[in-house]
Amino acid sequence: MSWENNVRKVVPYVAGEQPEGKVIKLNTNEFPYAPSPMVATRIYDLAENEIKDETSMLRKYPNTNSDNLVNALSEVYNVDRDKIFVGVGSDDVLALSFLTFFNSDKPVLFPDITYSFYDVWASLFKIPFEIQPLKDDFTINKEDYFKTNGGIIIPNPNAPTGIMESREMFEEILKKNPDSVVIVDEAYVDFGADSMLPLIDKYDNLLVVQTFSKSRALAGLRIGVAFGNTKLISFLKDVKYSFNSYTINYPAIEIATAACRDTDYWKETVAKVIKTREWTKTKLKELGFEFADSKANFIFASHKTVPAEHIFTALKEKDIYVRFWNKARISNHLRITIGTDAEMEELIKSLKEIIENYA
Amino acid sequence: MSWENNVRKVVPYVAGEQPEGKVIKLNTNEFPYAPSPMVATRIYDLAENEIKDETSMLRKYPNTNSDNLVNALSEVYNVDRDKIFVGVGSDDVLALSFLTFFNSDKPVLFPDITYSFYDVWASLFKIPFEIQPLKDDFTINKEDYFKTNGGIIIPNPNAPTGIMESREMFEEILKKNPDSVVIVDEAYVDFGADSMLPLIDKYDNLLVVQTFSKSRALAGLRIGVAFGNTKLISFLKDVKYSFNSYTINYPAIEIATAACRDTDYWKETVAKVIKTREWTKTKLKELGFEFADSKANFIFASHKTVPAEHIFTALKEKDIYVRFWNKARISNHLRITIGTDAEMEELIKSLKEIIENYA
Repeated sequence: MSWENNVRKVVPYVAGEQPEGKVIKLNTNEFPYAPSPMVATRIYDLAENEIKDETSMLRKYPNTNSDNLVNALSEVYNVDRDKIFVGVGSDDVLALSFLTFFNSDKPVLFPDITYSFYDVWASLFKIPFEIQPLKDDFTINKEDYFKTNGGIIIPNPNAPTGIMESREMFEEILKKNPDSVVIVDEAYVDFGADSMLPLIDKYDNLLVVQTFSKSRALAGLRIGVAFGNTKLISFLKDVKYSFNSYTINYPAIEIATAACRDTDYWKETVAKVIKTREWTKTKLKELGFEFADSKANFIFASHKTVPAEHIFTALKEKDIYVRFWNKARISNHLRITIGTDAEMEELIKSLKEIIENYA
Repeated sequence: MSWENNVRKVVPYVAGEQPEGKVIKLNTNEFPYAPSPMVATRIYDLAENEIKDETSMLRKYPNTNSDNLVNALSEVYNVDRDKIFVGVGSDDVLALSFLTFFNSDKPVLFPDITYSFYDVWASLFKIPFEIQPLKDDFTINKEDYFKTNGGIIIPNPNAPTGIMESREMFEEILKKNPDSVVIVDEAYVDFGADSMLPLIDKYDNLLVVQTFSKSRALAGLRIGVAFGNTKLISFLKDVKYSFNSYTINYPAIEIATAACRDTDYWKETVAKVIKTREWTKTKLKELGFEFADSKANFIFASHKTVPAEHIFTALKEKDIYVRFWNKARISNHLRITIGTDAEMEELIKSLKEIIENYA
């Protein structure tokens, strides 16, 4: 015997590499532009007025509910404050949601090709789960989600495929599952997909999760959001307050609030990324790549003749990082994040060379 | 049936009130002085150089291991980097430690009068626990921790009592429990108690947890630390990476790093709080209060004649907030955080009035 026998042993999620130095980083779906200029303004203001002397906001615990941020979200998204939950990135929001809502002996359902954190959370919390294979074209077979289950989670658009499913499909799944919470993980929704947010008043079992890490250019700040009916959100808050009373720190609450209110900058920069994505699609097609139509800030592509792993390695040698998984069904695919125009031009140039030089 | 049947229902921890406006706040053990001036310097620097344009550090995910902060801790505390774990306040570190190390069918042991989050975490994760009563003088009966168990957690100094236990006692408990992880929660250790940190190489089952929320004046930043042998820390990291890859955000890593390295300011301000605490002890005794000798930044006192609840309510009417629990064994005690000299003078003045006016 030893204390090691009492340890929860898990196989953790492996995030994309975070190389330092001058590389083209298209591997973790970060936003290519700076966050709102209101962010820097707010940080100056913090340094100038809210840190120094005994009135320092940092010496005190932050507001447990991140009220300023919740108020901003409530106004910008036109949702009641008690239907909003915020956490340390959508990973925190999703982990706490698994813990809160998937507390059943029946299996939780999610697609086989999807965000690879879902089975990690299920394993961590000893939640049974049953993986549902996507169709050959990587779309969802909705009937897979009509069977008995302890909860459902589906990203929309799905990652890493980028495919958006219809509101009709989600409504059907929601109607067939009044006894389960259905989480729609909308990390990438702002890049052109339809949000299920307008449905939260219609379906009391719907939780919509979003993030500031992608379209808000704030991956470094760790802000995630859940929208749902008041009862759902209050159960989630009870679990959060049983884990850690104060999660989002004071500067992060204030910075995220400032970014949240700057909707003009947000829409403008997201439109730029969408434009670059559409340009990249054309160029990738010209080079012989195939992919489903992406509504996210990435493209999940495979080449007609050159294996994905070869391209992945060759790009890395040129200091261009994309994401590759050596996993069943997707081992010939690359997930390419949409960067700036200059970065994508460099990518296309490099891909052309790699494909031409492939024996 | 309904989705509510699958919900984990919990009774969350209730944190001390966070009143706004001009009040004397002695209820959540916050540090009365501003954090290190290096904090404001680092925040200016962030705003000036690391937020704007496409090189913005905020648009990228932060370092998963908070390397800069871990390096600073390693140097300041003279501990190897792989023996250090950091999280979103010590509550995050402790919650993840419960999840990681208390994964047994046998009960976890902790005192009856202690940090009231322990039973909340145990309940959240469905961990059996068995409460061990403190002696009448609120010290620990070490034999209580020699029985079969699935883990042990004891704060030192204990909260809310402020009492420090000896290194000898902890060594005895550690030796008697080779099959359990023993967590020493040292949230308040910097205010004059002995840390068990030097023992982490001697006992591979010891985890020492500290925080930046008290002596570092950074409750608003949410930084907690655990020290332990490499194997312990690596199990804890696996669970953390199975919950949320990126927890401490980029500004918080950088601000905490700057504060951590400013040991002069830290020691100087902590000495001021200790001096104020000793002055307060004298004054409270003069007013007829009784309390164990506190080595923390608070005093846990009861009055010989005036009931604690009466004092608590009367102080609140004067906009002075202290902490009161209507719980067995401690319902006649108040936990009073050590504030600035001016705040404590105001407190003593008000207490004098309240006691004199008590019929």
